[in-house]
Amino acid sequence: MNYNQVFDQAIDRLHSEGRYRVFIDILRNKGQFPNARCFHGHNGPKPITVWCSNDYLTMGQHPKVISAMEDALHDVGAGSGGTRNIGGNTHYHVELEHELAELHGKEGALLFTSGYVSNDATLSTIAKLLPGCVIFSDELNHASMIAGIRNSGCPKQVFRHNDLDHLEELLAAEDPETPKLIAFESVYSMDGDVAPIHAICDLAEKYNALTYIDEVHAVGMYGEHGGGISERDEAAGRIDIIEGTLGKAFGVMGGYIAADQKIIDCIRSYAPGFIFTTSLSPALVAGVLAAVKHLKNSSEERDAQQANAASLKQKMADASLPVMQSETHIVPLMVGDPVRAKKISDILLAEYGAYVQPINFPTVPRGTERLRFTPGPAHTEEMMNDLVGALVEIWDRLDLELAEAA
Amino acid sequence: MNYNQVFDQAIDRLHSEGRYRVFIDILRNKGQFPNARCFHGHNGPKPITVWCSNDYLTMGQHPKVISAMEDALHDVGAGSGGTRNIGGNTHYHVELEHELAELHGKEGALLFTSGYVSNDATLSTIAKLLPGCVIFSDELNHASMIAGIRNSGCPKQVFRHNDLDHLEELLAAEDPETPKLIAFESVYSMDGDVAPIHAICDLAEKYNALTYIDEVHAVGMYGEHGGGISERDEAAGRIDIIEGTLGKAFGVMGGYIAADQKIIDCIRSYAPGFIFTTSLSPALVAGVLAAVKHLKNSSEERDAQQANAASLKQKMADASLPVMQSETHIVPLMVGDPVRAKKISDILLAEYGAYVQPINFPTVPRGTERLRFTPGPAHTEEMMNDLVGALVEIWDRLDLELAEAA
Repeated sequence: MNYNQVFDQAIDRLHSEGRYRVFIDILRNKGQFPNARCFHGHNGPKPITVWCSNDYLTMGQHPKVISAMEDALHDVGAGSGGTRNIGGNTHYHVELEHELAELHGKEGALLFTSGYVSNDATLSTIAKLLPGCVIFSDELNHASMIAGIRNSGCPKQVFRHNDLDHLEELLAAEDPETPKLIAFESVYSMDGDVAPIHAICDLAEKYNALTYIDEVHAVGMYGEHGGGISERDEAAGRIDIIEGTLGKAFGVMGGYIAADQKIIDCIRSYAPGFIFTTSLSPALVAGVLAAVKHLKNSSEERDAQQANAASLKQKMADASLPVMQSETHIVPLMVGDPVRAKKISDILLAEYGAYVQPINFPTVPRGTERLRFTPGPAHTEEMMNDLVGALVEIWDRLDLELAEAA
Repeated sequence: MNYNQVFDQAIDRLHSEGRYRVFIDILRNKGQFPNARCFHGHNGPKPITVWCSNDYLTMGQHPKVISAMEDALHDVGAGSGGTRNIGGNTHYHVELEHELAELHGKEGALLFTSGYVSNDATLSTIAKLLPGCVIFSDELNHASMIAGIRNSGCPKQVFRHNDLDHLEELLAAEDPETPKLIAFESVYSMDGDVAPIHAICDLAEKYNALTYIDEVHAVGMYGEHGGGISERDEAAGRIDIIEGTLGKAFGVMGGYIAADQKIIDCIRSYAPGFIFTTSLSPALVAGVLAAVKHLKNSSEERDAQQANAASLKQKMADASLPVMQSETHIVPLMVGDPVRAKKISDILLAEYGAYVQPINFPTVPRGTERLRFTPGPAHTEEMMNDLVGALVEIWDRLDLELAEAA
């Protein structure tokens, strides 16, 4: 048994498929987002514009967030020093959970160290508590949901993306007495489309299934108070468990669920991924608290993001670039090949100072490799014009296909 | 199918076993650790002494850590805004990985959002890459290692705690060509004993097995530079993968592994728990960088911790309290029953302002419920005397058994 050989082969496979990942080393410039310094491929930092951040609303540089984090640092220090049960339950954690529960109109909420862990820990635990549970999972669900479903050990039925007929067919095929859980996302992050929440809840009621929605690409950004698509569509009350992140629109780090108190209490008490881990740093929690409170009362950031996303999509379409249909703030540009996607990304960064990471398998299916732009409230008209001009030049240089004229 | 009934029953089980967890709501007072404010069971904050923090060396309040975090907050903002691959790879992350690799004398290191995720993601991924791998796991391994091993889907052989004969017996029973991985901890956190690293590595060499060590309760605290027990015992070079935390002795939050570059590259490229999650906030990473650098060159905190732990153990033994054998900084006091352990903890907090959480199943085996004290460099002689006096009074009040006189 030669271990090194196995590891070498694993890495060689990625190189040969053109999907070996190179991390671009950057520092964002607080107060000047989306501007950043890039340390990749040259000596010393070079200014770039970031087009692929999930700090969607630039809350990561908001003065209220920064000052709340500073205050917490000075009051209680850097880390929490323990798990939630052993010394790591700070007053900030308690307060943020109340705030998030209220945001979603639920009795309770529970913080996790990340959105990934929220999904993994909650899905694996809730399903394990329900004897014989079958999980119905949208085929485009995020890797963290897939991990949680796999780790539950429960049988899984995958339904075609947003396909209500297929979901109903699968639900109807199970015994009415079998516990059922439907797991889906509100905004699918790589395509930018949205789930039919009410219609899924109708099926859940008809077949007595629990519902679990991942709103990580929606919280802070949709609904009057930033409660996500479930708030916008007035569907939050019909969902059993709403999962969100603190690391995207809220600008910091961490994840959470909101649900009935008894569900929260079960996850809190039974999920190893919640129990056996140091709790979020109180400084992070304080920062999120400021971000959530701000976005509850301010639509300025959401409005500017939507306007800029619409504008960038229009500019790309006008230039006949193959921008994908998207109902949301996400602007995906189809390439369809990992090597070309990386090539375009490399040229954009090296020659145009525009940073957008290529999205490859396994994040998206093979053959649908793409560039994914996330314009936020701080991207200017000029930046968008420059970007589209650069893309048109590169498309021409690499002899790539343009879309049919709209 | 009545979902609410199932959830109610799950919670009722915990109450009836006396192990329903109540989180104690606190805020530590930066600059005055182990002093904190407690919001539990009364109106407004009340001063307490924390005896159960895993911020072992009080680095969470170190001026270098706080100021590094502040600087990062002001330079780059609150969150990273993305996964390591998509916009979330900051210069701080790159620098800390170099620092941690150097600390353990390895080619590379990789950051995770927590120690839990480090173990889960690394163990599940490395074993999956090795066709037919068998994992040999110490029976007292942490829940996160157990999760990683289970999630790998590989066959597992559990060896009796620190039992070399049993480990060898299990290793010898496998085909020599079968890939093998031995997973163990250096310091076992609930007992405070230490693994025989060299002897385990001898067996690993003899049977051609990879070695994986969890050093979360040792990094920062053992070895001349804080490289853990593997540094102290000069065994780091014999271990394939060293896993550590940034949330205990380093005082902040996060986890990591250190290993050969090709192993790091494999985990970086194949572990969903690493790939699909927002990277650590750069402010956290900056704080850890300051803590690691400081503890590389300062033994003052380590020495004071060891002296205080030895002193507290001696004081407990002198008072005939049932303090458990421990070779390390961890001071466990055996109770043997979840209800009594909670009762003692409640009295200590309410009447003596001493906060130590009871440790129940599943953190420790049933019947070995205990109190676990972690004196650090900031605990004073007077605090220890007060604590031991309180324990003696409570032991008497509850008519608990004392140990044989030493």
